[in-house]
Amino acid sequence: MPKQVDHEQRRRLLTEAVFAVISTQGFEAVSLRDVAEQAGVSMGTVQHYFPTKQQMLSFALSHMRERVLARLQAALAALREPTRRDLIRAATAVMLPVDPAGREEACVNIAFFSAATVTPAYAEQLRDGYGRILTVSVANFREAARLGELRDGIDPDVEAPVLYFLTQGLVGPILVGLYSPDDALALIDAQLDRVFRPISP
Amino acid sequence: MPKQVDHEQRRRLLTEAVFAVISTQGFEAVSLRDVAEQAGVSMGTVQHYFPTKQQMLSFALSHMRERVLARLQAALAALREPTRRDLIRAATAVMLPVDPAGREEACVNIAFFSAATVTPAYAEQLRDGYGRILTVSVANFREAARLGELRDGIDPDVEAPVLYFLTQGLVGPILVGLYSPDDALALIDAQLDRVFRPISP
Repeated sequence: MPKQVDHEQRRRLLTEAVFAVISTQGFEAVSLRDVAEQAGVSMGTVQHYFPTKQQMLSFALSHMRERVLARLQAALAALREPTRRDLIRAATAVMLPVDPAGREEACVNIAFFSAATVTPAYAEQLRDGYGRILTVSVANFREAARLGELRDGIDPDVEAPVLYFLTQGLVGPILVGLYSPDDALALIDAQLDRVFRPISP
Repeated sequence: MPKQVDHEQRRRLLTEAVFAVISTQGFEAVSLRDVAEQAGVSMGTVQHYFPTKQQMLSFALSHMRERVLARLQAALAALREPTRRDLIRAATAVMLPVDPAGREEACVNIAFFSAATVTPAYAEQLRDGYGRILTVSVANFREAARLGELRDGIDPDVEAPVLYFLTQGLVGPILVGLYSPDDALALIDAQLDRVFRPISP
């Protein structure tokens, strides 16, 4: 019987190599040769899966979304009887470069935001991906409001985007060492304290 | 008499060419040739001022800070009898890509944040530059608190970084078209409404 190759799996492995090259050598460094070397395969194999560099990078960007969602699901599954606030806090922490995986993802995402200024296809992918997360975030805050979990006078349609963009705005400063992960999480917690009612004991 | 060349002026002109190349063609595209073409000078002239690409880019990043500060001063000077809230609002708007100059600066800054993940010298420059703005912002909020301009229970040491990082977090989403400049400014105004007391008539 011929050996079965899981093509989707192979494509993902190559994409992880793309992430490693971007975050350790920079977006400029991404080449067929570097990705092949990083993945331990031939350049022909990379070309077989991704005929052009832009196809490789576009697939990498969509796989990045899946990867973040998988980490998010794992983080949420690890919580015991989480409140809505716990869920929102965990989702926020996943988007920050507070551990090696988050750091690699942040490097890659920033690289794509930069590349998006001259490559409309990336801008569209980012708009779509980040837009979905924002939509989920607004829905979560509205549900919390409906359940009476938010303090008086708190508007979920304001606080959801504020928390979301605040989180995005902490990514670059953490990466360059202006703000520590702990300080960033403390700022997030201060927001959540302001927005959510304290849980009655 | 020999013709006097204002070297500092020339260096700045070349730097503006670097900004134009980054924001229209991308960070990867920055080359001696492109910058010379964009500036309308010879490649030898560019090399005379910037022997290496990294020297050119490092100077560009420090000039970017000056350029943003100059736009900020112009924006502040245009205000008539501004309140502290007006000053903070104007400074925030200068940092957002809400006009062509702001958009070009945002493209360049994101490109440097991306490059900083593999070039520690850029990370240091960004940490220093953004850190200074954050320090000024905290001082402004503290002064507003001292003057009784903030609402009860508002902590300037929390609200200054929140507004600052929220603003940074809106830059990428505006660039890729996820959020409009108007929506971004409305979110900023909602923050300021929450933090500052209404002005008595």
